[in-house]
Amino acid sequence: MRGAILVLSGPSGAGKSTIINHASPNIGDYYFSISTTTREPREGEEHGVDYYFVTHMEFEEGIKAGDFLEYATVHGNYYGTSLKPVNNALDEGKLVIFDIDVQGHRLVRAKMGDYVTSAFITPPTLSELEKRLYARSTDENSVIERRIDNAKEEIKALNEFDFIIINDTVEEASKQFTMIANVARLKQSAEELENFILHWEN
Amino acid sequence: MRGAILVLSGPSGAGKSTIINHASPNIGDYYFSISTTTREPREGEEHGVDYYFVTHMEFEEGIKAGDFLEYATVHGNYYGTSLKPVNNALDEGKLVIFDIDVQGHRLVRAKMGDYVTSAFITPPTLSELEKRLYARSTDENSVIERRIDNAKEEIKALNEFDFIIINDTVEEASKQFTMIANVARLKQSAEELENFILHWEN
Repeated sequence: MRGAILVLSGPSGAGKSTIINHASPNIGDYYFSISTTTREPREGEEHGVDYYFVTHMEFEEGIKAGDFLEYATVHGNYYGTSLKPVNNALDEGKLVIFDIDVQGHRLVRAKMGDYVTSAFITPPTLSELEKRLYARSTDENSVIERRIDNAKEEIKALNEFDFIIINDTVEEASKQFTMIANVARLKQSAEELENFILHWEN
Repeated sequence: MRGAILVLSGPSGAGKSTIINHASPNIGDYYFSISTTTREPREGEEHGVDYYFVTHMEFEEGIKAGDFLEYATVHGNYYGTSLKPVNNALDEGKLVIFDIDVQGHRLVRAKMGDYVTSAFITPPTLSELEKRLYARSTDENSVIERRIDNAKEEIKALNEFDFIIINDTVEEASKQFTMIANVARLKQSAEELENFILHWEN
């Protein structure tokens, strides 16, 4: 059986990375999809770990070559997901986890909806999100304000997702995430179902 | 938060009841929807436990009164689900589990799709199903043959379900069922999501 895709979206500051790390020992073998971007690395970010950092020219060559499962421009920078490592991980039967925005979710669902389960992770309220973003303080205020404006837009796309995880406590949110990740693996593509039906009578 | 609905379908002999009983201690508080039927009770079946057994006239009065969430005629008998106990259980935040056929699944999804997660349970092969049905031997051969013909039809509707559980071993099937049941509870209706978005900014 081929693997499955779990898309996670939600505002920066929602706690996506914390939840994934916390749930990590309980969700079996997975491949965390690393995005490619043209934006500058933040302090502490590593190439090949947080992102693949590339130039505008390299990114645009990738687009021309059809390398991207999805890509978008956000605040003047490209962000995208290379198709090849995703297909490799699916062939190995792995769960592929994406941390992408609601635009990215739409594109992945449109192209590979057969494999996709999705969850939107959000703090319980906007004011809680603001608190967390300012406490994290890795960004300038103007960047934080932009993230908050984005969050107000993204939250409206909630109903496009299979699940919503309200990150009130990390423990509860990780528990929900673990259940969703494990169930995502049970999802079978239309092709797999057709094959099953074909062989069922023999 | 309101409850959620989990629809189970699959041929008689697939092992639905065994799986539910096996998983029962691990899926929290649930209401198992009892169908109403005009067919004769089989040996050992009890009114109010296995089915509500009613007359044709009683059933047709229920239809006229709009009491049924879904109903259908199968082999000349009515089968249906009363709406009221379902809504009561949902109001109490319970998971409502349905054991209905693929027609019933379509109707429940059409009316209450917002709340529905669904799984199709099947033995791994048709010959395994035949073996189980003849071993159970509660029915005459003609009934078993009709069940097998039904199964061949129902399996084609596999792709309408969120999940498929291949009942190879009861342990593995119950484990999958438990995960699906627990995740079904996380499903929120469009109304609940709208409410969440409305209050999120305040």
